[in-house]
Amino acid sequence: MARVTLLTDFGTRDGYVGALKGVIAASVPGAVLDDVSHDVPRGDVRSASYALARYWRLYPEATVHLAVVDPGVGTARRPLACEADGRLFVAPDNGVLSRVLAATGRWRAVEIKDAASPVLASDGASATFHGRDVFAPAAAFLATGGDLSALGPPLEDPVRHEEPSPVRVAAGMRGVVVAVDLFGNLLTNLPGASLEGVDAAEVAARRVPVVRTYGDGSPGEIIALVSSDGRVEFAVRDGSAAAVLAAGPGTEVLVPISK
Amino acid sequence: MARVTLLTDFGTRDGYVGALKGVIAASVPGAVLDDVSHDVPRGDVRSASYALARYWRLYPEATVHLAVVDPGVGTARRPLACEADGRLFVAPDNGVLSRVLAATGRWRAVEIKDAASPVLASDGASATFHGRDVFAPAAAFLATGGDLSALGPPLEDPVRHEEPSPVRVAAGMRGVVVAVDLFGNLLTNLPGASLEGVDAAEVAARRVPVVRTYGDGSPGEIIALVSSDGRVEFAVRDGSAAAVLAAGPGTEVLVPISK
Amino acid sequence: MARVTLLTDFGTRDGYVGALKGVIAASVPGAVLDDVSHDVPRGDVRSASYALARYWRLYPEATVHLAVVDPGVGTARRPLACEADGRLFVAPDNGVLSRVLAATGRWRAVEIKDAASPVLASDGASATFHGRDVFAPAAAFLATGGDLSALGPPLEDPVRHEEPSPVRVAAGMRGVVVAVDLFGNLLTNLPGASLEGVDAAEVAARRVPVVRTYGDGSPGEIIALVSSDGRVEFAVRDGSAAAVLAAGPGTEVLVPISK
Repeated sequence: MARVTLLTDFGTRDGYVGALKGVIAASVPGAVLDDVSHDVPRGDVRSASYALARYWRLYPEATVHLAVVDPGVGTARRPLACEADGRLFVAPDNGVLSRVLAATGRWRAVEIKDAASPVLASDGASATFHGRDVFAPAAAFLATGGDLSALGPPLEDPVRHEEPSPVRVAAGMRGVVVAVDLFGNLLTNLPGASLEGVDAAEVAARRVPVVRTYGDGSPGEIIALVSSDGRVEFAVRDGSAAAVLAAGPGTEVLVPISK
Repeated sequence: MARVTLLTDFGTRDGYVGALKGVIAASVPGAVLDDVSHDVPRGDVRSASYALARYWRLYPEATVHLAVVDPGVGTARRPLACEADGRLFVAPDNGVLSRVLAATGRWRAVEIKDAASPVLASDGASATFHGRDVFAPAAAFLATGGDLSALGPPLEDPVRHEEPSPVRVAAGMRGVVVAVDLFGNLLTNLPGASLEGVDAAEVAARRVPVVRTYGDGSPGEIIALVSSDGRVEFAVRDGSAAAVLAAGPGTEVLVPISK
Repeated sequence: MARVTLLTDFGTRDGYVGALKGVIAASVPGAVLDDVSHDVPRGDVRSASYALARYWRLYPEATVHLAVVDPGVGTARRPLACEADGRLFVAPDNGVLSRVLAATGRWRAVEIKDAASPVLASDGASATFHGRDVFAPAAAFLATGGDLSALGPPLEDPVRHEEPSPVRVAAGMRGVVVAVDLFGNLLTNLPGASLEGVDAAEVAARRVPVVRTYGDGSPGEIIALVSSDGRVEFAVRDGSAAAVLAAGPGTEVLVPISK
C-alpha cells in the first residue's frame, strides 16, 4: 500500500491541501495520505527541515515524504526528488532536506525537469502552485513505484543549510540554539550525551539545572535536558523558554565539562 | 477503496470531527478519510465554496466530498446530496456547492429526507449535530456505492450564490474580489487570460504591475498575477494584500485592455 | 484493516505527530491513521476526556484510540492500555479516559510496563517523548491484533476524574458547566431530558429561553438546548456563551422543575 506524508505551510482553510491530496489520489487510488503539518511558519525552510528530521526515518522504506515549504515558487529554484535510506522525498531544492541529508550518506537526488517525464502535464505547470502541478504528481509517481531517475537528471549539489558545529572551549562545549518548537523549547546543536554527569548548563548567560524530564522542573523553572531528538534542549516547565529568555536560533549555550 | 474528504468549520480540539469519522468508519471499514480543512471561518459558506472549488475535480470519480459548514443547522435548510462530474457531495443546501454547480452542467441533486432511507436512524437526528447524524451517514452510504436517489427526492433548485460577472467598460474589464485566502491574496472574478499582454492592473484604485509569480515582486510590493485557479489575483510578496489594501470580497478591480 | 485515531496536544508544526504516525506505519504497513485533534489545550486532560467521549464509541470495535495529553511525561504516572466495549485505548493514566470509563462497565486495563513486551525497545524509552517511544508502539501492537494482557499487568484503579452529580433542589435540578467547546458553548452535567416541558433555564444567575437548536435564538441571545451529547448546553447564537457570561467549568446552572 502506498503511503505519502505531507508537510506544508499552506494552512488548510483554503483547500490548497485538498488539491495536493486530490492529485495523488487520482493517480494512486489506494494511497494513504498522512498529514504531518500544514502550519509550518510561512516560508520557514529551517523549521520545516527540523520538523522533517523528527519523522522521516521512523516511517518504513518506500514511504514518500512530500515537503512543500517553498517561498521561491515559480523562480529559478529547482524542484527536487530524492531517495535517502530507502525513503523517498519530493521538495523544492531550498534546504528543506538539510537535516535528512546530514543524517545519512546514502542518498541520491534528481532535479524534476524532464518534460517527457510522466509527471509534468504537456501544458506545463502554473507559476504559482507547484505543490499541485509538480510536487504532488512527482510524489504520486514515486508512490506507485516509479523510478527516481525517470523524473530528471541527477542533482549532485542540493541546497544544504549546514548546522553550526559545537565548539570546545576551556569551560566546556559551546553551542547555539538551532530550532524552537511550538512550546518554546530550545533545541541546540549540542549532543545530549554531553549532559552526562553534568549538574548545570548555561543558556543566554543563565545557569540552569540539568534534569531528566520536564516534570522534574518546578513550574516556571528553566531547565536543561536531553531532547527526544538526542540533543541538549532548554525548556521551561509549563512555560516557554523562548519567551522567558527572549531566545531563538543563534542564542548561545554552554555545557561545562563533566567533572 | 472508498475515499471521503472532509471540509468543516468545526475546529478539531473538541472531537466533533472524530464523530464524523467514526460514523463513516463504522459503516465503511476500509474507508480512507482525507481531511481538507476543519478551520473554514465559522459559518462562512462563501469561503467554503471557494475552498471546495480548489480540489473537488482533482480527486477521482466516486470520491465522496463531505462539506459541513452549516450555520443553519436544525432550521428549515435542506440537507443535500449531489453528483457532479462523477464526484459525490454531501452538504447542507446553503450555497456551499455554488462553485461546483457553476463549473459543470453535469450534476443532479437530491434532498436527504427519506425517513425510510438507510441513513436516518429511526429515532431521528439531533437538532444540533447534523454532521454526525445526517451528513456523515449519507456520505458513508454513498461511499459504499449506495444510489444517490435512495437518499431522497430530486432537488432541482439547490441554493446557489452567483458570482458577479465581469463588466466591459471603456477602460477595460471591471471586476471584484470574490475571495481572500489565508495569506491575504485577493482572488477576483476576472479570467486570468485577461492579463495577457497587460503590464499593469488596478485594485482598490491603485495601479500595480502584472507579474508571473510571487517571487517576481519585490518584498512588500503589490502585484497582479494569474492565480493557480486561472483567475486574476492580487498579492503582496511576503505580505497580505488584504491587509495592505484593506480589501476583501467586493473590492473593485480593473484590467485595462491589452494594447 | 487496522485503524488508529490520534488525539494529542502536540500541535502539528514541529513534526512530533509525524513521529507517532511513522512508528505506527512502520509496524502496521496498511494502517489508516485518523487525526482527531492535535490542538487539545496544552496539558488539559479534562478537555481531552470530553473530546474523546464524543467519538470513541462511534468507531467500530477493534479501533485503537491513541490519546496523548500527558503533562506528567517521564514522571511516575503510568502508561495505560485499555479495552472498553470492544474499542482499544492507549493513553497516560492521568484521567484522560475518565469519560470512557464512566460510560461503560465493560472495560479492562493494563499498565504498559513489561520490559519483555514487544513494544518497549531494549534501550528503553526517552524521558520526554513517550508518545513516540511507548504509546505509539503499544497502539501499533494492538492494531495488529496483539493481546492487551501482553502489554503488562492488570491495572485495576485507573485515574478517574469524577464528574460532579446534579443536585435536586426545591427550585429544580442544579448542576455545573463541565466543559467548554471551541465555540464557547457550555456543556453541563445535567441530562438533556431535564429540559422537556421547560421554557427557561438558568446559567450564571441569568434566566434564558430553552430552544431546540442554535438557529432558534436571535443573534447574540443566550439560549439553553439539548447538546449533541444529550446534555443540557448553554450557547449564544453566532457568539460565545463562555465569553458573554464569563463562564467555564464550575459555573452554576439550574433547570427548573417542569410544570
